[in-house]
Amino acid sequence: MQNLDFYREAFESYLKASTAAKEPLGLYEPMAYILGLGGKRLRPSLTLLTSELFGGDFHSALDAALAVEIFHNFSLVHDDIMDDAPLRRGKTTVHEKWDINTGILSGDVMLIRAYQCLESYKGDIFKELLKLFSRTAVEVCEGQQYDVDFENRNDVTITEYLKMITFKTAVLIAAAMKMGAIIAKASKEDSANIYEFGRNLGIAFQLQDDYLDTFGDPETFGKRIGGDIVENKKTFLYLKSLALAEESDARELEGLFTQTPTDPTEKIERTREIYMSSGAAQHARDEIQNYTTNAFKILDEMQVSENNKKAFKQIGEKLMQRKV
Amino acid sequence: MQNLDFYREAFESYLKASTAAKEPLGLYEPMAYILGLGGKRLRPSLTLLTSELFGGDFHSALDAALAVEIFHNFSLVHDDIMDDAPLRRGKTTVHEKWDINTGILSGDVMLIRAYQCLESYKGDIFKELLKLFSRTAVEVCEGQQYDVDFENRNDVTITEYLKMITFKTAVLIAAAMKMGAIIAKASKEDSANIYEFGRNLGIAFQLQDDYLDTFGDPETFGKRIGGDIVENKKTFLYLKSLALAEESDARELEGLFTQTPTDPTEKIERTREIYMSSGAAQHARDEIQNYTTNAFKILDEMQVSENNKKAFKQIGEKLMQRKV
Repeated sequence: MQNLDFYREAFESYLKASTAAKEPLGLYEPMAYILGLGGKRLRPSLTLLTSELFGGDFHSALDAALAVEIFHNFSLVHDDIMDDAPLRRGKTTVHEKWDINTGILSGDVMLIRAYQCLESYKGDIFKELLKLFSRTAVEVCEGQQYDVDFENRNDVTITEYLKMITFKTAVLIAAAMKMGAIIAKASKEDSANIYEFGRNLGIAFQLQDDYLDTFGDPETFGKRIGGDIVENKKTFLYLKSLALAEESDARELEGLFTQTPTDPTEKIERTREIYMSSGAAQHARDEIQNYTTNAFKILDEMQVSENNKKAFKQIGEKLMQRKV
Repeated sequence: MQNLDFYREAFESYLKASTAAKEPLGLYEPMAYILGLGGKRLRPSLTLLTSELFGGDFHSALDAALAVEIFHNFSLVHDDIMDDAPLRRGKTTVHEKWDINTGILSGDVMLIRAYQCLESYKGDIFKELLKLFSRTAVEVCEGQQYDVDFENRNDVTITEYLKMITFKTAVLIAAAMKMGAIIAKASKEDSANIYEFGRNLGIAFQLQDDYLDTFGDPETFGKRIGGDIVENKKTFLYLKSLALAEESDARELEGLFTQTPTDPTEKIERTREIYMSSGAAQHARDEIQNYTTNAFKILDEMQVSENNKKAFKQIGEKLMQRKV
């Protein structure tokens, strides 16, 4: 069993060999471009590693890993249009480099291409992968829709928020792992468990991402601290603060989130104070811990060797230990 | 064996039962809306009818027909965004009624939903349907990209134009029929032949659509005559005229297609004259006849009963006889 970096590199070579731009270039160049921008390749690496942990050969999982990564990048291309985002991984987004129509159509062909990657699997495995893939893809779209809807709502509950991030982020991580398990012919129970492991870890991961956006170390977080506050994003911290803070603080927070000052320093500072004094920051840390603990509990109940449990635990720890 | 109208009605009921809007409404209402706008339901009806002609029960083909129709409507939603079209079937387009982001995301979920419709098929049939569906979907995207590319090119050949309409229109008609054949467990040869029948007929159908846009009877065509000329669309008639017309007429035609006069009557009239005098109009009629004849020749070679050949021929004739 190798570590995630090993699988990332194996995947990177396979991806490179699979994405030569072809005719019509207007359709396939943007696809090669976005897939060439790099990123952590977390999801496909998880597919490869999971398949080996269940006794498979990671080479057999490369096409599923490719499907997952192409799907993920399809969703980035279309989301970036919807969010009017100029940059992705520090580079120009597809619709900015080309235009919106190119972003739409290249995205479409990427989604279909992702399905085609799965054609190398046979029989029941093919069908099981397809069903999981489609169900996950629908949920990712629904998650994106809830995210859009929440922007215009003032009554989003924590439960709704958790469902949104589950769909938008966690299910693809869960499905990426389960696909590896399916390909390695893991038992139904193990496959279901590894999905739940990935889902819980995915939620913890996204909650932590939100938390670090506000409270992370500027040196190590990579993005500017306070970005979510600047964009008035109704994250877990915001929603929980509204629920927990004293009336005057809650109203002040709502007021702050109607403003977009040129210099946001003061707004960020005051919001952070309310997030902390309300207890929301502590709650967020608790929830991250809860979902991580849940994930590890599921792992304990699985019918895999202690060594492999350790390996899965390491993935979880690696995922959650970054940049706090 | 029933006629196309019978299958259209059967499909219509099945569609209605399958497209109740659900949460999140922002995602599924637009899908129910576009699928409820009607249309000829040509493609899904062909799937049902073809499956019966190959000895199947059309009920078994309903899910494949649904996949084809949902895919077709997905492509309409995204194409309408790209073409900035305000109307579709006389009603407001999705991105006009809601917004572009809704059009993108609802379209995405429709594409995935189309794949999910195929999950009711088993084993080899499932895989065969999936592969055909994906290949066709990729070609439809490529056809749309070529269509976009051609707008900015002055050197499009007739061969390239025919490839574009093959991908954009004909392959989905061909695949719709072949899916019916696959579900009815037709032989590989018959399935391949019915695909070629549909492809040739699809090309003839699109060429005729272009022809009628310029030379149709305003009473029966449904759309305003000359729409392609007003929009400077480089159709078969235009490209063939440039190739065949005398130098001065060719230059005049190119000039006309750089203009968008408020009153296009004169432009339409002069363009029609050049299309006729160059011989392009006759060539178009010949090509329509050639592709139709090709389709019927393929039919003759098939291993199906004379009665069924007659039925397929009737479809072809019905498709080609409208509004000339």
